[in-house]
Amino acid sequence: MSVALVGAGPGDPDLLTLRAARLLATAEVVVHDALVGDGVLALIPESAERIDVGKRPGHPTPQEMISTLLVELGRQGKRVVRLKGGDPFVFGRGGEEAEALAEAGVPFEVVPGITSSVAAPAAAGIPVTHRGVSAAFTVVTGHRRHGEPDVDWRSLANVGGTIVVLMGVSQRGVIASELISGGLDPSTPVAAIESATTDAQVVGRWTLAALADAEVRSPAVIVIGAVAAFDFRSGYLPAMSEATAYAPIRSSQPGQPHLR
Amino acid sequence: MSVALVGAGPGDPDLLTLRAARLLATAEVVVHDALVGDGVLALIPESAERIDVGKRPGHPTPQEMISTLLVELGRQGKRVVRLKGGDPFVFGRGGEEAEALAEAGVPFEVVPGITSSVAAPAAAGIPVTHRGVSAAFTVVTGHRRHGEPDVDWRSLANVGGTIVVLMGVSQRGVIASELISGGLDPSTPVAAIESATTDAQVVGRWTLAALADAEVRSPAVIVIGAVAAFDFRSGYLPAMSEATAYAPIRSSQPGQPHLR
Repeated sequence: MSVALVGAGPGDPDLLTLRAARLLATAEVVVHDALVGDGVLALIPESAERIDVGKRPGHPTPQEMISTLLVELGRQGKRVVRLKGGDPFVFGRGGEEAEALAEAGVPFEVVPGITSSVAAPAAAGIPVTHRGVSAAFTVVTGHRRHGEPDVDWRSLANVGGTIVVLMGVSQRGVIASELISGGLDPSTPVAAIESATTDAQVVGRWTLAALADAEVRSPAVIVIGAVAAFDFRSGYLPAMSEATAYAPIRSSQPGQPHLR
Repeated sequence: MSVALVGAGPGDPDLLTLRAARLLATAEVVVHDALVGDGVLALIPESAERIDVGKRPGHPTPQEMISTLLVELGRQGKRVVRLKGGDPFVFGRGGEEAEALAEAGVPFEVVPGITSSVAAPAAAGIPVTHRGVSAAFTVVTGHRRHGEPDVDWRSLANVGGTIVVLMGVSQRGVIASELISGGLDPSTPVAAIESATTDAQVVGRWTLAALADAEVRSPAVIVIGAVAAFDFRSGYLPAMSEATAYAPIRSSQPGQPHLR
């Protein structure tokens, strides 16, 4: 197996899978994103070549170049780990890299990672599903490239489950507006989790109506729905009817890497 | 930390997190579900007490009893691991157990697991999101208890993303019918993955119209949407327009725990 597309999870290195940790420990080359946590990067052996293809604004490495790089490294027979924040197939563009490797005949494997879409809410005490409150959750990106298929936010407003938005900080006003136009109650609870599962974690909570003007720093995971008012760490799990009466607050809860 | 609510992932023990593996290795009591993989159960130390609360049909342990048990064990100061298939908060009822522990003042932590909703499709070569094809995915349970909030399948049909159904085998006919009534193309590709990420993995593929009569054994993860026709393991990633022309097949692909 020469190339492994590996999910690095939400940030906390303890949330790496056993398989990911083993592949990292023996890697000869690690190609990683900007969203991979520092704690995970610290596990890369000194002997390994490290290539940062992080798509920071203004410093992007085009996806085609990344795919070409992986094919080249794979053909050299090196033990390559392509490390991605979260899971490779949750907006990680892992499918494109897998396609390029398969077409080039380069052997590869895929190692799922803990997706921030579930783990970031959990780190804020929010279950994405909860009996009697939410029987579905939709994970959606707020980031649209030209030619991307669009999400029908107004239909989404009527599904009746939790909505988790990744990469949606800059579009949060438009998203909130579309969801409210679709029929979602403006008082629906919203939470945003920055730097989830790390010492820098910050959790903010508002209503959907207040989201546009809320202070949220990117990257953050935004949770919309009754469960966003929950904090099971404190035993606070309001009933659905109470959740909509939730008052906006903003709190910082650092140092809870394991959701204690 | 006396009680840990731990996600066991989809089946393959290599997909446990480092934290989960460490907690298991030092556990004094392990309370586990029916959906936890045999490979993961094999990691429980011989010295640990093992309590199976698996909710198999006809042999259920009521959720209230499980919560009470966890509180009691936690109060005894034992190192308790509550092991759940997948992730504790993706239909794992972890929120209810967390609530009971918090209310009782029993210290606990939550360790996310790899959710089958993403990892089972990946194990069949299906990315739940893919650039130009799917910019959202909804995870929903087909299993409804009395008094549960309902999911509006017809609205879901219009969202435009991938639909992943957990615990939906027995309801697959009704689900397909509702989605088609909501406007989803009857030729939309569908895949079902049984025993994902284990040696017993079986993948079936059909159209949405054929799902009702398809042979699927529970438990299985059902994927509905253009990506369900993909198999990146073989480099087969059809364009959206081609995906709907997908012909139903059924194939068995055992022995691919790492999605090779």
